[in-house]
Amino acid sequence: MRDFTFYNPTRVEFGQGKENKIGAYMAEYGVKKVLLVYGSERIKKDGLYDKVIQSLGEQRIEYVTLGGIKSNPVISKAREGVALAKENGIDAVLAVGGGSVLDTAKVIAAGAVYDGDVWDLCSYRKMPDSALKLFDILTLSATGSEMNSSAVITNEETTEKFGFSSPVAFPTVSVINPELQATVSPNYLAYSSVDILSHCMDLYFTASYIPEFTANHIENIIKTVIRTTDTLRAQPENYEARSEFAWAAAQALNRSTFAGVEGNRYDSHLIEHSLSALYDVPHGAGLAVVYPAWTRWHMSANQARYKQFARNIFGLETAEAGIEALTNWFTHIGAPITLEQIQVGSEQIEEIADHIYSTMEMARMQTMYSKDILVELLHQMK
Amino acid sequence: MRDFTFYNPTRVEFGQGKENKIGAYMAEYGVKKVLLVYGSERIKKDGLYDKVIQSLGEQRIEYVTLGGIKSNPVISKAREGVALAKENGIDAVLAVGGGSVLDTAKVIAAGAVYDGDVWDLCSYRKMPDSALKLFDILTLSATGSEMNSSAVITNEETTEKFGFSSPVAFPTVSVINPELQATVSPNYLAYSSVDILSHCMDLYFTASYIPEFTANHIENIIKTVIRTTDTLRAQPENYEARSEFAWAAAQALNRSTFAGVEGNRYDSHLIEHSLSALYDVPHGAGLAVVYPAWTRWHMSANQARYKQFARNIFGLETAEAGIEALTNWFTHIGAPITLEQIQVGSEQIEEIADHIYSTMEMARMQTMYSKDILVELLHQMK
Repeated sequence: MRDFTFYNPTRVEFGQGKENKIGAYMAEYGVKKVLLVYGSERIKKDGLYDKVIQSLGEQRIEYVTLGGIKSNPVISKAREGVALAKENGIDAVLAVGGGSVLDTAKVIAAGAVYDGDVWDLCSYRKMPDSALKLFDILTLSATGSEMNSSAVITNEETTEKFGFSSPVAFPTVSVINPELQATVSPNYLAYSSVDILSHCMDLYFTASYIPEFTANHIENIIKTVIRTTDTLRAQPENYEARSEFAWAAAQALNRSTFAGVEGNRYDSHLIEHSLSALYDVPHGAGLAVVYPAWTRWHMSANQARYKQFARNIFGLETAEAGIEALTNWFTHIGAPITLEQIQVGSEQIEEIADHIYSTMEMARMQTMYSKDILVELLHQMK
Repeated sequence: MRDFTFYNPTRVEFGQGKENKIGAYMAEYGVKKVLLVYGSERIKKDGLYDKVIQSLGEQRIEYVTLGGIKSNPVISKAREGVALAKENGIDAVLAVGGGSVLDTAKVIAAGAVYDGDVWDLCSYRKMPDSALKLFDILTLSATGSEMNSSAVITNEETTEKFGFSSPVAFPTVSVINPELQATVSPNYLAYSSVDILSHCMDLYFTASYIPEFTANHIENIIKTVIRTTDTLRAQPENYEARSEFAWAAAQALNRSTFAGVEGNRYDSHLIEHSLSALYDVPHGAGLAVVYPAWTRWHMSANQARYKQFARNIFGLETAEAGIEALTNWFTHIGAPITLEQIQVGSEQIEEIADHIYSTMEMARMQTMYSKDILVELLHQMK
């Protein structure tokens, strides 16, 4: 194994009804006044909002709210949250929602203790060195944000989609009650599956070295996501499948898949972030479009690994057959696999390539792809 | 999955040469004066002691030492450490050694901030509610203590082998450099393997329910330990095998194997602790003696799981064949499989059964085995 650091202090409270204890969990850490961040008003209709407010009330924790976080979250909302936190003397942030709500809450938690503009912390100008304590109740398992220290957010003025990764941004307690995800739509189930798989596959395909133990761990996550997604398409109420899906999603990006690995990159995410930043495509849908073309292009760089993928995930013999099976499975679950399916035309390819390239420059990764290769790759996604 | 809490804040610094940074790691947490706990004087001969002292010196961290911790560590040594810590105004404990040194250090770290006798904390009278920060440099991967919150120690006056598990006892930073384990003797490699396997197998065989994802994870640890032990017997210097072995050992008892599991127990450990407490047998050797008889006795209670074990670990068809293969593998790696091989005679069986039974009473688990069944089981280990 190559040298590594493993550190993940997030306490995961997993299971039915645990959202009712959120106030008690926060009280354990001395929280007095919280900023409650959420997405749509749906949580008021389905009763989750009331449960949270009641649980806070039981512990006499005061709260201020910030609703309306959308997918592909934007920095203007985070700025709003930072202002609220500063004005109200907030001592913790509680995210109730999926990855977008959580990432916004992470940015707010870091911004609330930072003197400058919070976008500094997301654009590689300044790394967060402290943050308010963050708690969350997860309503959609996909991004893995519930068990890691990263946040990604879009600056809608510049269309930059950046973020940070810092040990101060780990959630203190993440509540994962799989029941809360039983009403996720088939489309969002598909996008979430693709996102989780891509967290595993980007690493699996790009790493120059993966220890056998870690490769098996990654394959276990991939197989669990495929198996449980198939079950959940037929039986959305299947708690067993829902819970394994949720736990696999958290494992996929909690750094357990990095143990002893060398040379991994996040290519599909790099490319996709431009699609969602420019056209507000759901992140998982964008990834499903990127994957078939990107893997076919990348395959020759790591033939043995793609063969291992074909064999261990789909029981097939060749690298090509593995990618074909994956592509077919995306279609089977209703994920798009072409730019056309997400309403992006050929005439936009130059713009996308430029956007990816400038993102790479910003993150000092511009040696990864030339602009010509990006254009060629994007044409293969048509 | 059944409801669970996952929490493991230990930062693992894994890799070559990381022991040289121990002072820097401690300085990050503001440590000024440390109690350095170790086992035999061998660490002075092989240069590890000097490296540690130099690394502490670079950060101007003062130290007091406590050497001579033996396998099956004893409470008198921990009391000595507690006294040293209190007299010298120590603010952290650094363990350099294997599981025995680490467990002693955990007990000292908790005892140093407790007013009464430290044995209170180990004998279910009082749970530790705080502790000094604990750091370690691991020299033998086996017990998993480097990534969990448990400690086990023997009161040599009463021959009670008890301990505690408390969130305050997680190591802050664990340094695992697999190179430091390259000189472990073939016997201790075997005992360590059996210990790690038993951490997985006790849970795997006794749990009434294990989610598929978690079962795969446990099987991955078991297969990794068997594969790397076989490699290391032939090539003790094989870094790749040594590192996967070490990481699997940490995973085996860091609670990742408990995710969503129901109804597990630690039967083989319960029985073995009496062997090592009474006769100072190496823990792993005692476990190897317990396992063949205990599994044959227990098999009918969980036939499907034993079949799964046979199939997924050894590629065999029946539960019996799986246990036979495991027993043969113990013999193959040089682990004892009978009481006779560890110099315990039939005439001692009553004494052992009494000891196990009184341990169960102390921990309020006396419904698990009647004394008659224990005697019968022990006779099958002859």
